[in-house]
Amino acid sequence: MKIMFCGDIVGRAGRDAVVKEVPRLRRELGLDFVVVNGENAAAGFGITAKICAELHEAGVDCITTGNHAWDQREIIPYIAQDKRLLRPINFPPGTPGWGANLFQTPRGQKVVVINVMCRLFMDALDDPFRALDAELSKYALGRGAQLILVDVHGEATSEKQSIGHFCDGRASAVLGSHSHVPTADGWVLPGGTAYQTDVGMCGDYDSVIGMKKEVAMQRFIRKMPGERLSPAEGEGTLCAAVVETDDRTGLAKSIRPVRVGGRLAQTA
Amino acid sequence: MKIMFCGDIVGRAGRDAVVKEVPRLRRELGLDFVVVNGENAAAGFGITAKICAELHEAGVDCITTGNHAWDQREIIPYIAQDKRLLRPINFPPGTPGWGANLFQTPRGQKVVVINVMCRLFMDALDDPFRALDAELSKYALGRGAQLILVDVHGEATSEKQSIGHFCDGRASAVLGSHSHVPTADGWVLPGGTAYQTDVGMCGDYDSVIGMKKEVAMQRFIRKMPGERLSPAEGEGTLCAAVVETDDRTGLAKSIRPVRVGGRLAQTA
Amino acid sequence: MKIMFCGDIVGRAGRDAVVKEVPRLRRELGLDFVVVNGENAAAGFGITAKICAELHEAGVDCITTGNHAWDQREIIPYIAQDKRLLRPINFPPGTPGWGANLFQTPRGQKVVVINVMCRLFMDALDDPFRALDAELSKYALGRGAQLILVDVHGEATSEKQSIGHFCDGRASAVLGSHSHVPTADGWVLPGGTAYQTDVGMCGDYDSVIGMKKEVAMQRFIRKMPGERLSPAEGEGTLCAAVVETDDRTGLAKSIRPVRVGGRLAQTA
Amino acid sequence: MKIMFCGDIVGRAGRDAVVKEVPRLRRELGLDFVVVNGENAAAGFGITAKICAELHEAGVDCITTGNHAWDQREIIPYIAQDKRLLRPINFPPGTPGWGANLFQTPRGQKVVVINVMCRLFMDALDDPFRALDAELSKYALGRGAQLILVDVHGEATSEKQSIGHFCDGRASAVLGSHSHVPTADGWVLPGGTAYQTDVGMCGDYDSVIGMKKEVAMQRFIRKMPGERLSPAEGEGTLCAAVVETDDRTGLAKSIRPVRVGGRLAQTA
Ligand SMILES: [Fe+2]
Ligand SMILES: [Fe+2]
Ligand SMILES: [Fe+2]
Ligand SMILES: [Fe+2]
Ligand SMILES: [Fe+2]
Ligand SMILES: [Fe+2]
Ligand SMILES: [Fe+2]
Ligand SMILES: [Fe+2]
Repeated sequence: MKIMFCGDIVGRAGRDAVVKEVPRLRRELGLDFVVVNGENAAAGFGITAKICAELHEAGVDCITTGNHAWDQREIIPYIAQDKRLLRPINFPPGTPGWGANLFQTPRGQKVVVINVMCRLFMDALDDPFRALDAELSKYALGRGAQLILVDVHGEATSEKQSIGHFCDGRASAVLGSHSHVPTADGWVLPGGTAYQTDVGMCGDYDSVIGMKKEVAMQRFIRKMPGERLSPAEGEGTLCAAVVETDDRTGLAKSIRPVRVGGRLAQTA
Repeated sequence: MKIMFCGDIVGRAGRDAVVKEVPRLRRELGLDFVVVNGENAAAGFGITAKICAELHEAGVDCITTGNHAWDQREIIPYIAQDKRLLRPINFPPGTPGWGANLFQTPRGQKVVVINVMCRLFMDALDDPFRALDAELSKYALGRGAQLILVDVHGEATSEKQSIGHFCDGRASAVLGSHSHVPTADGWVLPGGTAYQTDVGMCGDYDSVIGMKKEVAMQRFIRKMPGERLSPAEGEGTLCAAVVETDDRTGLAKSIRPVRVGGRLAQTA
Repeated sequence: MKIMFCGDIVGRAGRDAVVKEVPRLRRELGLDFVVVNGENAAAGFGITAKICAELHEAGVDCITTGNHAWDQREIIPYIAQDKRLLRPINFPPGTPGWGANLFQTPRGQKVVVINVMCRLFMDALDDPFRALDAELSKYALGRGAQLILVDVHGEATSEKQSIGHFCDGRASAVLGSHSHVPTADGWVLPGGTAYQTDVGMCGDYDSVIGMKKEVAMQRFIRKMPGERLSPAEGEGTLCAAVVETDDRTGLAKSIRPVRVGGRLAQTA
Repeated sequence: MKIMFCGDIVGRAGRDAVVKEVPRLRRELGLDFVVVNGENAAAGFGITAKICAELHEAGVDCITTGNHAWDQREIIPYIAQDKRLLRPINFPPGTPGWGANLFQTPRGQKVVVINVMCRLFMDALDDPFRALDAELSKYALGRGAQLILVDVHGEATSEKQSIGHFCDGRASAVLGSHSHVPTADGWVLPGGTAYQTDVGMCGDYDSVIGMKKEVAMQRFIRKMPGERLSPAEGEGTLCAAVVETDDRTGLAKSIRPVRVGGRLAQTA
């Protein structure tokens, strides 16, 4: 089967790119399942129920998040009742919402999405490796689940790559988010897991990680609180990776990048 | 003119890729100048005089470094007398070596290379923005210098992008290193500066940032000192960006990625 | 002469302790000069012009700050015109306000107060060592200035102690703030500078660094944004160090702690 | 009963202070149990079996550690078989050694020592709050255990205080280590737990956290690797806290500081 994972949606530019392009890409690429990371969809900070609805309307099956999951307080009751919106699985016990969910496609394929967060240069959540090990142990790849996708939300490339190798052969794909920059290192690991350090944000790249560049840049220079950060408003680029898997094994056959619209070099 | 910047060389796999491919790429792409980041060339930690010689022999004009600059103590006297080997410019006054140098190509073009290090999630060096401002003020792009390349060695994508925008119109290219992963966001900023968050390492990508994956992964899992890290020994990928500039203005006409050999998808 | 430095005032409990005790301590201890760190005076976050007036009214001669200097935006125009309110000297050039000031006591003694911030585990300001070196070079201790006090606002004990030794013999006292806990390591360094890693906060110690303990504790446990932090409201302890110096040399003769009111063991 | 906890022993100066003073203090203060943190006992880095023997010989009942636990590799087999040497309890499952142990005094009192490590500005171990909750649940304070001591090894005062309040009423004492500076905030929390943010190192205070000051200071100034750090060699101060508890409830009646020898102001 074929799945697409789009990275962190940043503000309106990112939402517009996703809403516009996902229906077309689903059709043209023959996608069976679409996941997006929505942690910055609401003006750069968090996500709302309304935005979730808008994304599902456009053909998004599952929304993952990360360190910005809770920026909009209104999402807390929502995430506690809609399992299509995930938060990293390694938040401590008692955290609202879920870190993984099993979905079924119209064609009857079972798809598991796991959202996990790294710790290096980030908040000290629970051990992502043990959390993944526990969750992956629940499924038999290729039988109980045709496809298992891990969104690894993290800062350090070393930790993300370690998680990729850790899951190699047990997940169909380990795809990164959080850096807001697409990496060009998509490949299928020796055990059959597709890996890419980051799929990149969906948003305006004439910016600082999706936010207006002047204000963001001044924070580094002036070391004082400045104006509030807000998303850049130029045309967004949808950034994603498409992974094709073998339904019998659940392992990846290929991974390729998607970049549509906005500033970055477009993929075919 | 045309310049190529290759990211952090990690160990023998990285050195082999550079030594093998740079002569061919110089010729086939018509490169006028080649810069590599060599901070991990010596078994993953630092660089030696012997390796510098080997790289120059292969057609490397300038070597930059970063946080690993000093891992091999023998480099300290060397860096203090050979200005083809740079260390980040924003080390405090009194640090051996130079952070920038002006080179002249055989065709008489003046090329300035500036090496700078970010601070977010890294050591607190001097302000990289003020250091760049001071250095860039010395040259008139297009007249005193036909090309100015900045190697921005950093962890956080936000800081690297801020530095890109800060230099926009004043440097020919701002190209990132340190993450050891190539990004797919190369583009020419509005002011004419080519930018890419990271050009990626030269090394074996079946690894954790170039080091053997088992040992590197265990450090995240076990939280105890383990075996010493050493470079992965599979075939390396040379990762680089090629920037073409207009000699009259010094601004970029294009930027494109180069990935040759090893695990990653190859560029044409 | 005799100077007292009180650590970070946290909210009303801290302000009340200072306003109540400083007049009495000035009198009973024969203090010539009183400095307080006020960075958390306004409900835990920053300081206002009104609070500055209240503190000066109570006999405070100089107010220092730290990373919370700018939490209340209204202080920016104020700090730019009243040199009795300092911010760390190693903010980048162009930052409003001053990092050091020379005062004159009623008895004609010249007192220099320097506010500096550390970098380890904190924001990457300019080098505190070079900033101190430059500022200290302006004064001849014992002649141009009878007393030089450095408020070193920092997290890591190693960096604060390094700054103490760096200033040894050039300042009368290097006294720490920011940790909100008094240390018991006050002594006169070999070169004659009184040193204490932290003088402790002025606030309610039945708390988490002055803030209500339940909410503060839950942030570590739940890893989600919770209720807004607000200062604990029990009786505050005034925490300070008193340094006695020799007016001819400007060097310290003694340093002793002051703890009055609230939860902590009281000093005589 | 009466227990003494001495903070991080740094090198020979610290060992000498402990070996010299502990026998006398045991006798004069009528101590029932003595715990020391030994993580820097071996030339500043880790601890050896020989040093453990030396400390036990001097009357130390239990040795705790922290982030430096593993600096000397030879300790790994030792810690796996001698439960008088602890390492933080929140290392991941599978880590050699124990994080807590129940001891029995000659008079038959049961003493539990728990060693735990914080995470803020430190490595991302498992959640210290959940680890403490699980361990504390095993004992009934005052019945199953007459005294429970927690060595909280941490950097941030906020996290250490949060752990103090979290254990309030469930442990006899929560005493801090790692900062290498004694704090003056020892008090009995409302629920009956004695608390002190840090008991301070045992070592030479004319230093940077126990290490020779020139080399340590240069690391902050030069930002390059320098000479290897080694312990300062002046006379050490033994820094500790003595807690007296009620054997029936296990709660604290008092806490007071001990500082003997070396540079710091001595306690009576
Ligand atoms: Fe994001
Ligand atoms: Fe994120
Ligand atoms: Fe680096
Ligand atoms: Fe590197
Ligand atoms: Fe502070
Ligand atoms: Fe503060
Ligand atoms: Fe430690
Ligand atoms: Fe220590």
